[in-house]
Amino acid sequence: MRYGFFDDKNREYVIDKPDTPMSWINYLGTSEYACLISNNASGYSFYKSPRLGRMTRMRFNSIPMDRPGKYIYIRDEADGDFWSASWQPVAKPLKEYHSQCRHGMGYTRFISEYKGIKSNYRVFVPVDKPLEFWEIELLNLSSETRTLSLFSYAEYCLWNNDSDLSNFQYCLYIARMGYYDGIVDYSIVLWPYYEPKGFMASILPVESFDTDREVFIGNYHNEANPAAVLNGKCFNSIAYGGNPCAALQNRIILASGEKKRALFIVGIGDAKTDGAQYRALYQDPDKVEEEFIKVREYWNKKLGKYTIQTPSNIVNTMGNIWNPYQCNTTFNWSRSASFNEAGGRDGLGFRDSNQDTLGVVHCRPEEVKDKIKDLLKAQLSEGYAMHHVQPLTLVQGRHNLPESGGIYSDDHLWLHLSIASYIKETGDEIILHEIVPYADKGEATVYDHLKQALDYSWTKRGEHGILLGMAADWNDCINLKGKGESTWSSFLYFKALTEFTEIAKRMGAQQDVRKYSEYAAEIKTSLIKYAWEEDRFIRGYLDSGRKLGSKQSEQSKIFLNAQTWAVVSGAFRDEKGKTAMDSVRNYLFTEHGNVLNYPAYEKHDPEIGAITSFPKGLKENASIFCHANTWSIIAEAMLGRGDRAFEYYMSFLPAAKNENADIYTMEPYVYCQFITGKEHPYYFGRARNSWLTGTASWAYVALTQYILGVRADYDGLIIDPSIPSDWDGFKVYREYRGKSFTITVQNPNQVCHGVSEILLNGETIQGNKIPLSKMKKTNIVIIRLNACNS
Amino acid sequence: MRYGFFDDKNREYVIDKPDTPMSWINYLGTSEYACLISNNASGYSFYKSPRLGRMTRMRFNSIPMDRPGKYIYIRDEADGDFWSASWQPVAKPLKEYHSQCRHGMGYTRFISEYKGIKSNYRVFVPVDKPLEFWEIELLNLSSETRTLSLFSYAEYCLWNNDSDLSNFQYCLYIARMGYYDGIVDYSIVLWPYYEPKGFMASILPVESFDTDREVFIGNYHNEANPAAVLNGKCFNSIAYGGNPCAALQNRIILASGEKKRALFIVGIGDAKTDGAQYRALYQDPDKVEEEFIKVREYWNKKLGKYTIQTPSNIVNTMGNIWNPYQCNTTFNWSRSASFNEAGGRDGLGFRDSNQDTLGVVHCRPEEVKDKIKDLLKAQLSEGYAMHHVQPLTLVQGRHNLPESGGIYSDDHLWLHLSIASYIKETGDEIILHEIVPYADKGEATVYDHLKQALDYSWTKRGEHGILLGMAADWNDCINLKGKGESTWSSFLYFKALTEFTEIAKRMGAQQDVRKYSEYAAEIKTSLIKYAWEEDRFIRGYLDSGRKLGSKQSEQSKIFLNAQTWAVVSGAFRDEKGKTAMDSVRNYLFTEHGNVLNYPAYEKHDPEIGAITSFPKGLKENASIFCHANTWSIIAEAMLGRGDRAFEYYMSFLPAAKNENADIYTMEPYVYCQFITGKEHPYYFGRARNSWLTGTASWAYVALTQYILGVRADYDGLIIDPSIPSDWDGFKVYREYRGKSFTITVQNPNQVCHGVSEILLNGETIQGNKIPLSKMKKTNIVIIRLNACNS
Repeated sequence: MRYGFFDDKNREYVIDKPDTPMSWINYLGTSEYACLISNNASGYSFYKSPRLGRMTRMRFNSIPMDRPGKYIYIRDEADGDFWSASWQPVAKPLKEYHSQCRHGMGYTRFISEYKGIKSNYRVFVPVDKPLEFWEIELLNLSSETRTLSLFSYAEYCLWNNDSDLSNFQYCLYIARMGYYDGIVDYSIVLWPYYEPKGFMASILPVESFDTDREVFIGNYHNEANPAAVLNGKCFNSIAYGGNPCAALQNRIILASGEKKRALFIVGIGDAKTDGAQYRALYQDPDKVEEEFIKVREYWNKKLGKYTIQTPSNIVNTMGNIWNPYQCNTTFNWSRSASFNEAGGRDGLGFRDSNQDTLGVVHCRPEEVKDKIKDLLKAQLSEGYAMHHVQPLTLVQGRHNLPESGGIYSDDHLWLHLSIASYIKETGDEIILHEIVPYADKGEATVYDHLKQALDYSWTKRGEHGILLGMAADWNDCINLKGKGESTWSSFLYFKALTEFTEIAKRMGAQQDVRKYSEYAAEIKTSLIKYAWEEDRFIRGYLDSGRKLGSKQSEQSKIFLNAQTWAVVSGAFRDEKGKTAMDSVRNYLFTEHGNVLNYPAYEKHDPEIGAITSFPKGLKENASIFCHANTWSIIAEAMLGRGDRAFEYYMSFLPAAKNENADIYTMEPYVYCQFITGKEHPYYFGRARNSWLTGTASWAYVALTQYILGVRADYDGLIIDPSIPSDWDGFKVYREYRGKSFTITVQNPNQVCHGVSEILLNGETIQGNKIPLSKMKKTNIVIIRLNACNS
Repeated sequence: MRYGFFDDKNREYVIDKPDTPMSWINYLGTSEYACLISNNASGYSFYKSPRLGRMTRMRFNSIPMDRPGKYIYIRDEADGDFWSASWQPVAKPLKEYHSQCRHGMGYTRFISEYKGIKSNYRVFVPVDKPLEFWEIELLNLSSETRTLSLFSYAEYCLWNNDSDLSNFQYCLYIARMGYYDGIVDYSIVLWPYYEPKGFMASILPVESFDTDREVFIGNYHNEANPAAVLNGKCFNSIAYGGNPCAALQNRIILASGEKKRALFIVGIGDAKTDGAQYRALYQDPDKVEEEFIKVREYWNKKLGKYTIQTPSNIVNTMGNIWNPYQCNTTFNWSRSASFNEAGGRDGLGFRDSNQDTLGVVHCRPEEVKDKIKDLLKAQLSEGYAMHHVQPLTLVQGRHNLPESGGIYSDDHLWLHLSIASYIKETGDEIILHEIVPYADKGEATVYDHLKQALDYSWTKRGEHGILLGMAADWNDCINLKGKGESTWSSFLYFKALTEFTEIAKRMGAQQDVRKYSEYAAEIKTSLIKYAWEEDRFIRGYLDSGRKLGSKQSEQSKIFLNAQTWAVVSGAFRDEKGKTAMDSVRNYLFTEHGNVLNYPAYEKHDPEIGAITSFPKGLKENASIFCHANTWSIIAEAMLGRGDRAFEYYMSFLPAAKNENADIYTMEPYVYCQFITGKEHPYYFGRARNSWLTGTASWAYVALTQYILGVRADYDGLIIDPSIPSDWDGFKVYREYRGKSFTITVQNPNQVCHGVSEILLNGETIQGNKIPLSKMKKTNIVIIRLNACNS
């Protein structure tokens, strides 16, 4: 069963069955002000921080599902019947109420029809103002003149989300709402003294208003049947304490065939000044359209730096539109603003945000640089990093020490990947000399930050010469502690060491090159000696010395990450790597992707950690964790096995689930955190926790840099595809260092991999890299794949 | 407008209009397991801690209001129509659905009638088992045989309330529900490893079940129209991850006039063992009734220690039933389990729990002793106290230091009142020699704990010789910090010093008597010199030296507590005290009680604190804060001005608001935290934050010990009433030190106050105290009031 379809021409996903099994959402806003909005117009808005600047409220994991949001009620004054511009909250029967939700790039539109009235409701956030537009056009399709009331309705949150969720004996006594000349004034006073301001304005004359939720909704009513809408008029209530809201009534008379427009503006600022100014400005529909065009241009620019044309439509849809759109969203909001988490993950996850840069560095290099520097400020002078950081509130000092036992083995090692990727993309090696403070004390060049991270990990090796697992590694739920060691962290360390060695070479730091090359070699030796086991790499050692993820293990005997990263790290692009990846195929592969481990844990094991506490097939315990699945694509592509890389790519591609959305349940246009694994007794193949996941950037890297194989290097652009053998070829347009490349890859021999020469602007170049020196402003590149070498 | 009435015979409050303006709730359970239940059967259950052991879920401050709870749906199989045993959640039209909710002592009952079916649904928690009974009787009043389905429904919470409210990406993947032989098994696994267990059983055969909320309710449905009830059958779902629930279907066929019974048992324990055992045991209705009788006996015993008979029915209702019932509830749960706070105030408030002992020490002395010792463990070795303490998790050590700036000037000084009250009631002076550890390090006798507290405060005096305000005093929102001084804390200090001096005298510690008497005298001298101002005591000094609550102050010029405590502390039972209390009457009195300060703050003043951030008339900013109003009763009673004491008592008595419940909005049977003050622009007289408030114990003290005047002393029972002059007298039955006293007070001269002799068992005793030596097992006491001396 499907609930919608892709409209690639408009870069939209169109939901024509509104009763989706989960909230299918979109993110509006690209800078400081943002909204989340579902296909039923639910969602919330915030300013700068979803935890500390939550402006409007949504109830998470609640019953009724998905309320409230950005609602416009439409009431026919002739009979009092009313509905909403989105299906919910009034939820008229779907036989009579026809509706499309179109999630686009930075906007969402609801086109609905009920009783001869067609409404076209568009919500978007301008690129540079803390506002949201609720713009609605009404068209009278009936033969009679119709008198309609519109009621806008937003429920305000009391700014600090934690307090709003729990501390009612305080937060219900801080609102001081107002109403001035048609504009609702959202004003609360927090202690310590802080007075956020917001407003809701309407460009049409206001018939009535409410600012007190209890009055607008009415006791024992809900958003489906608000007292004010039933009443045909708001009650002009002022919330002084209590739960604030904003509701404005407009009246619209429509002759048969006539179309009229209303606009509600919701935003941050003072009602009397900012609100009044914005209302005056946006009386003119062209001014609103100008803002909308800027949003379009913003996304055109972001998505236009790398476009693809492959034989697969859904690959093109995901690669050109939705995957980069998701990458930009994860980059903007880390894991802080979602429908899965009411606010606790505010700010940046250290490892998350490092990885998020990988998906946008080609289109937002300056912002990536800023983000990397924010992250470096959350590294401690010893070398390790804070696991979470909120740049808005971070201050250098002792209070920034992670709690004892709270140091992760991997956080600080992601810096080497993000910074290498940034320099390869931009050529900006100057960043290495910039001085950035540490979280606790002191400061150092970026180069020295990187060294410090490597030196720290060198001191955190265990008995087998591989890295200690500490609080956790990438897998938050493998908590080895004590003498426990992580193979995976050691692969990441190897990767960080080799990335750094390349950087050190470019800096001419021969001593560093030597030292860290030796470190890498020693780590690899230990991995061969202690982590390799016939057909797999084990996942590590427990504090007691038992092996983790080994044939000898009592429960889970093989882990995905220990195989993929053998290859991804670059340490084992050899027979061991191939064998390990064959074991992935043998033990972990399913039609929805590779499970993280197998068999699932069924018994609690305190030495292994939280992974053993989850039900089998969920989360870190043998689910199809999408983030980790991207690495199986990359590993196979690095081995040149394009058929398998592509099979893995397709297995968990959301767009591939569109026709089985009742099983998959979540958005078919963005990646989720995990898909329920094969060992779950009831729901194999069900997606959970969509949007803000490290999957986005790595899936984009996997597709663009490894399957299509076009990736930046320090001194040129590598083109090294690993594609399915049945592709005749593909095209890529890519910008790099201010130049453009139109790349055509031909595959007449139906192979997977193999580039030995490149035809650049008519000139043949040996190898698979276009050197900087040969690049023109505009480049035409043609490549013909050799016989498959895998 | 009224929504219900008192049924004193049954000790019940009966709500016959279910659409109350707020949730009117009851507390079930007296020990480790408890439920909150509203007049619409909403509410939640918890084990030991509402934050760390939240078993069933309720959505706070939500829309729809008041869901979910302890619901039983009744479905007529003939036509599929269904309703609920409480009005909500199905909420049939009140013309067709007739309903009474009877909140009793430890139970709540819903008697409803719809379409010829009468249901009598009783919920209660046994006194000594972690269970709740959902017992329902159905009577067929119609002339036809009816086939009915019952569906029980509880939504489980995921144990840790903070996580349940926000961290969905974790907590939605920990449930492992089961179903065994008719019993729902609630099982979740938390990390660090912990596996709480619960169950729901039915004594009737189970037709179908659900354990997955989304399946029972259905997408886009809610508790008013669950998919399973619409369907006529549950879906036998197992939640493995997701949101767990418990729903069981019974089928009942009722001939005309026939009555049948069903019972659902919800509790803590393993389904297969505990659940099955309880189900077997309670097949027998008599066994359930035995448990109910134990609840009755529990409350009979608690409420029987002190009973009154005055000329006022509502005073009798409150004094005999609801006020002591509320006192016991506040004592049990401090401020942790309410509808105002989703979980953040778990455990004990230091000052709150000290004061809560005052209302129950006569009926629960052993538990008071334990609580006092728990509180002493939260005192630090320097003498001050932790503001909040969770005895379940408190461990001695450095981590128990309050944060810098988090020390209150008053917390530790309440110990002297609670311990003095405990010894006066019980005579147990041995407690003073018991050794109790401090929160941070070391240990000391209770006597030395008390001294340490006094010595600490002596070091925390300011420039005017009165106590520094520090983080706050009783008023959490007066945050003076720096050099700011609090008159009120100084009154409390004076009271603590004099209570302690009495104790020291009894211990024969002459040096201590001398030292602390001198301290008290010096404090009093400073107060006269620096806090008295013509007709009032000022509230203190700000860091800058400006006066707080003075005629010279820019905003609020007089505070209630600074006047009442002049008298309550015992420092100024003189003309100054009388003049100060006359100013209360002149400036602060309203028909709903005395406002806390006047005029309200309108401008933010960072030197004064959070009080200046609240809207006027709400919370600490000039509302009628009920807790503080109790002290105006006591002060007037201490001054012998019984008319005024009683006027104050009646002004904010909830029962006195019963006929204007649409204004008052909250429960007319229990005190609330505050009533909106006269300066609020919209809602003067509206109650908020009911049940768990220091008002309960102090209102009980005010009525029983000061208006009726019967109070325990170290060496006897004082009888010193201050009553309204139009009372002809009153009777009190009181138990004290294992003896009983039937006290008749006669007031033939229509005076307020004045006892010069007591007729004890026929013998005349001079003064107003019955000495221990004269007491028999059973005592008849007659007193005639003299001419009013006020």
